[in-house]
Amino acid sequence: MQWKKVGSSDAPAYAVVLDPGDEAIAALTEFSRREALSGAQVTAIGAFESATVGWYDRRRQQYRRIAVDEQCEVLSLAGDVALGTDKAQIHVHAVLGLADGSTRGGHLLEGRVWPTLEVIIRETPAELRKTFRPEVGLALIDLGASDA
Amino acid sequence: MQWKKVGSSDAPAYAVVLDPGDEAIAALTEFSRREALSGAQVTAIGAFESATVGWYDRRRQQYRRIAVDEQCEVLSLAGDVALGTDKAQIHVHAVLGLADGSTRGGHLLEGRVWPTLEVIIRETPAELRKTFRPEVGLALIDLGASDA
Amino acid sequence: MQWKKVGSSDAPAYAVVLDPGDEAIAALTEFSRREALSGAQVTAIGAFESATVGWYDRRRQQYRRIAVDEQCEVLSLAGDVALGTDKAQIHVHAVLGLADGSTRGGHLLEGRVWPTLEVIIRETPAELRKTFRPEVGLALIDLGASDA
Repeated sequence: MQWKKVGSSDAPAYAVVLDPGDEAIAALTEFSRREALSGAQVTAIGAFESATVGWYDRRRQQYRRIAVDEQCEVLSLAGDVALGTDKAQIHVHAVLGLADGSTRGGHLLEGRVWPTLEVIIRETPAELRKTFRPEVGLALIDLGASDA
Repeated sequence: MQWKKVGSSDAPAYAVVLDPGDEAIAALTEFSRREALSGAQVTAIGAFESATVGWYDRRRQQYRRIAVDEQCEVLSLAGDVALGTDKAQIHVHAVLGLADGSTRGGHLLEGRVWPTLEVIIRETPAELRKTFRPEVGLALIDLGASDA
Repeated sequence: MQWKKVGSSDAPAYAVVLDPGDEAIAALTEFSRREALSGAQVTAIGAFESATVGWYDRRRQQYRRIAVDEQCEVLSLAGDVALGTDKAQIHVHAVLGLADGSTRGGHLLEGRVWPTLEVIIRETPAELRKTFRPEVGLALIDLGASDA
């Protein structure tokens, strides 16, 4: 992993480039915790040699895992970093492009990088915090007292 | 809907979190008008319990409506806010992920949120304005006298 | 092509609107070189009347070309501008929506605009530079001495 600050002091941002073999979720989670991010927007393009995406099964309150066991272009990878109980958590969705131009996608559970993943992380000046919602079975961003 | 200012005074931005049952286009249009946005970039991830996307039929000059009547991950939602005749209009495209990892997408006509839609709206300092193009049948962003 | 500066002096950004018939990669490459961009993030929505996307064949070290010869919504277009040997190079991936709501996507090799492509280009204050990687067969962003 290589990284570089690319934003201003007012609007901190990072370019992060992952290496062949890196697992994207683990690498970006580790980066977010090491840099103590408390709110950020994430986007990326690149390619994976394999990935697992998820579709949230509302009845079972868990992700159905969908394996994409082939080289695929990361056509879109978008999401955020927010604070869970005590640590930064990354939440990203991805659209993957296969050899015939068809696509697969879901909540990104894991993605093995090859040859690169070019990521931009832009901090949000305000903290984003997650709260567990038992009726959903997931921790969701909760902007708290700022209801409109 | 919850929202929070997350940008600086130089570069105003908003985190907007929609609730279960909210219709995304109506909610974001209402938000854009209430905050009097005159130009902005919109991105989001989350999930819908149903949605309708459109494909623009050039010959008929209207959108063909495509129903996605099932729980789907919002893999990518991207677009802009610009001024129509007198009010903010939102224009977003979406890629949706189904239970088997396949995808559907189009111009987002409506999306019923469940359980969340996490939206970042970044204002553009300069106004974006739309002009109706009779030969196309749509209002498109027109940067006016700034032709290159 | 129309364009307008929409960012602040600290964080320069451009709204670029392409016209019917423009080829997106050529137009955005020309724009990036004329404005002497040395690092930027690119996003867009709009529609193409035809496009060619690519999937990188690791064994042959070249892109497999996939033609999308029909009117399609540009659901997502994301990527970056970085410096190649001596000039700005654009690298974007796209997800395209067909008339039935299905999608195609890949590394964008060319896209013929109709009726519009609404692009936001945000400069990164720090330069992004590419290095050719013979083992991969591609030039990839190399953040140099900033290894983590």
